[in-house]
Amino acid sequence: MTNLDVFFNPKTVAIIGASDTPKFGFGTTRYLLNSKFKTYPVHIYKERIFGQKAYKNINDIPEEIDLAIILVPNDKVLDAVKDCITKKVKGIIIESAGFAETNIKEYVEIQKQIEKLAQDHDIRILGPNCVGVINFVNRFTSTEVEFPETENVGNISIIAQSGVLGNVFVEWGLSQNIRFAKSITMGNKVDIDEVDLLEYLQNDKDTKVITLYLEGVKRGKEFLEVLKKMTKPIIVVKNGTSEIGIKAIQSHTGSIAGNDIIYDAVFKQYKCIFRVNDFYEMLNIATVFSTQPLSKGKNIAIITGSGSLGILACDKIIEEGLNVAKLHENTISKMREVAPNWVSLKNPVDLGPSQFITLEPALNALYSDPNVDSILFIFTIPKQPLVDFGFPIKKIFRLIQKLVEQFQKPCIIVCFGSRWLFEFISKQASKYNLPVIPSIKDAVKAFRMMYEFNTYLTSINRVNI
Amino acid sequence: MTNLDVFFNPKTVAIIGASDTPKFGFGTTRYLLNSKFKTYPVHIYKERIFGQKAYKNINDIPEEIDLAIILVPNDKVLDAVKDCITKKVKGIIIESAGFAETNIKEYVEIQKQIEKLAQDHDIRILGPNCVGVINFVNRFTSTEVEFPETENVGNISIIAQSGVLGNVFVEWGLSQNIRFAKSITMGNKVDIDEVDLLEYLQNDKDTKVITLYLEGVKRGKEFLEVLKKMTKPIIVVKNGTSEIGIKAIQSHTGSIAGNDIIYDAVFKQYKCIFRVNDFYEMLNIATVFSTQPLSKGKNIAIITGSGSLGILACDKIIEEGLNVAKLHENTISKMREVAPNWVSLKNPVDLGPSQFITLEPALNALYSDPNVDSILFIFTIPKQPLVDFGFPIKKIFRLIQKLVEQFQKPCIIVCFGSRWLFEFISKQASKYNLPVIPSIKDAVKAFRMMYEFNTYLTSINRVNI
Repeated sequence: MTNLDVFFNPKTVAIIGASDTPKFGFGTTRYLLNSKFKTYPVHIYKERIFGQKAYKNINDIPEEIDLAIILVPNDKVLDAVKDCITKKVKGIIIESAGFAETNIKEYVEIQKQIEKLAQDHDIRILGPNCVGVINFVNRFTSTEVEFPETENVGNISIIAQSGVLGNVFVEWGLSQNIRFAKSITMGNKVDIDEVDLLEYLQNDKDTKVITLYLEGVKRGKEFLEVLKKMTKPIIVVKNGTSEIGIKAIQSHTGSIAGNDIIYDAVFKQYKCIFRVNDFYEMLNIATVFSTQPLSKGKNIAIITGSGSLGILACDKIIEEGLNVAKLHENTISKMREVAPNWVSLKNPVDLGPSQFITLEPALNALYSDPNVDSILFIFTIPKQPLVDFGFPIKKIFRLIQKLVEQFQKPCIIVCFGSRWLFEFISKQASKYNLPVIPSIKDAVKAFRMMYEFNTYLTSINRVNI
Repeated sequence: MTNLDVFFNPKTVAIIGASDTPKFGFGTTRYLLNSKFKTYPVHIYKERIFGQKAYKNINDIPEEIDLAIILVPNDKVLDAVKDCITKKVKGIIIESAGFAETNIKEYVEIQKQIEKLAQDHDIRILGPNCVGVINFVNRFTSTEVEFPETENVGNISIIAQSGVLGNVFVEWGLSQNIRFAKSITMGNKVDIDEVDLLEYLQNDKDTKVITLYLEGVKRGKEFLEVLKKMTKPIIVVKNGTSEIGIKAIQSHTGSIAGNDIIYDAVFKQYKCIFRVNDFYEMLNIATVFSTQPLSKGKNIAIITGSGSLGILACDKIIEEGLNVAKLHENTISKMREVAPNWVSLKNPVDLGPSQFITLEPALNALYSDPNVDSILFIFTIPKQPLVDFGFPIKKIFRLIQKLVEQFQKPCIIVCFGSRWLFEFISKQASKYNLPVIPSIKDAVKAFRMMYEFNTYLTSINRVNI
């Protein structure tokens, strides 16, 4: 089997169906031809693409090709794949759509032939009906993405059945200061599937957390086997909870989704994998796993300037089966020394406007409390006072980072308010490796999952000893 | 009883505890002293505040005062209220905290005395422990808010127990291009409560939709009576679903929350009020009610460029008890005329990258389909192709606005992707009175609630005839 590395770090690339006019593939062509990755455009009649010599056929290229990206219309794809096999490329990404998902016999048949070619030759194929890969570390991509600055590269990798995670949700995540390592979209999965990719990412040194969007699993037995071996957390969205949803899956990537109850049972049985409801939840929880030590217990301290949101957090903590930590009396008396009489110091600790002076001592007190396993910091200072009063945001975040490392207790910052505020806070916090997410519910779920994952890892280690 | 109008459009204002140094009240003082609202600062020793003459006592002001805003520390509030009564002001907003919510006898007692003063005199009091009001129409406020441009004033009003909705979530909403009319925070409710405010907003010509954040209801019987009379939709968040949450409410606004099951039963029985889980959901759903005609039936057509999100929408539609519309064969054949062979035209209509050419005819076809009651448009074009290919966004939104008005079928646009994209799309859409929200789940809930509310309004009208 060819190593999948070729998809993430190819020495040479050919784009079959390269495009310099506004249509599908335009952005990819433009990006790769101007990148450090040696790229050859292939086009049936154009002599030049973005000023670079174009080849009529991949076999005309006077160099070995590691990876071919196929963008031509569906009825031209089979020939392109055959050309790639002749050329002995190591990997192919087929982005074109219009195969099994159409449910039209002719195109279903073409997909089957491509599948057979992959089985019979020493070549790996990703797709069709996908947008391929993004490698945030070396900036290789077969789709369109605005790469973040180097310091914003992270350790979350994405495996997705469909293109929407490959760009739309990556864009969302990036603008929330969530940090990624790799993204792979699988489409109709003629060859490479979630089993291959989970194995690959388990051994990938750049990946710490895996997010997975599934419409169906092709190789059930192998999927369960790989889950047994995983020691990285997987956050999964599985669509098709309804009959109509399951039918729609067939029209999308041609997958047979099957009964959702079975999937749900699997996700509950295997303790490395956590099912969530949507892509926001997936990425919010992933960024917590990505940056924080695991929760060692169920007791959460809430610190906030908003009583309402503190109450909301209590409700969510109970819903998730966790505990609102009962604070040690020393913790309360340490906070009482600095807090005005009207501040509520029971958990939730509601500092109100006093947090300009009380936040620092309160954080210190909560972290050293033996009854506290995790900290939920609900940030609610609006823009104007933040700016007017010069709130010492960097100092606070530096302190939290220190406390997280010292006590190995995770902190999640939940931030509400305007887009300006969220961007400002999350950007600052990411410098101190602190996660900022806009949802209390997702934060509490992340605490629960980190606690469960910690229990799982401990149990494996026990078995291994 | 004094009319509550004085809180939203006072001719004269006094700020007791006005502040020109960075502390609570600084922003409010600065704003009002520089506004068109005639404002007098009151301060115990300062001679001037922001260059304007300050008065030692409200009774020193040589003019009648409509509204007093009290910002002094809790132990000075009772005297300030007495001064206001002597001055015969019509309304008082007490923003200071530190009363019943402390559970300290002394402060609980002070609150009771203030309550008694309100009962015994011809004066209305809002608070304590709140941030007062925002009137987006005339730009009067007792808190801090960046007012949107005049064309972005809307018809959603907020009643909230606590300050967090009065500024933090308003800021969030504004940056999502959600349009507000009024916001009122009630705090500990010594006098004005949700019953007064629901009655007031039911008759307020600027308000079409009401959002309500409650920690507890003081006058249960009157609350139910006012619900019977409401013909505007109320979207409610009620915290305290857990025992611990209920206890935290006591420490927050001193409310007795009581059993959540009773609240839930009430919210289900009264068809003008809809319970949601959090503030995002509340404002997302409110903006739909605010801009769209009500759904007349349960059949939803989904139109998108992302198959995955189309499937997710199917699942949510089934969860909410609605239907994925079965499209009329004419609708499908009209779309087939313009769509490439690989496009899936069953509902969900997944146009993929073809939407640059197929979106317009598809929207026309779906709107004229008698089997379709509502349209869910899931927008998934990432930034780069949107910019590169000059997607005709204004033309599409103008068309949708025309179709919504012509067929009286609501449309919700769900937009995913980067912050830039959401801002761009929601700003454009708001010019055409179209709601853009970032959640499929909330969109589907909004369709369900609009359908239920339409059924309710129809039933009332039937009774009235």
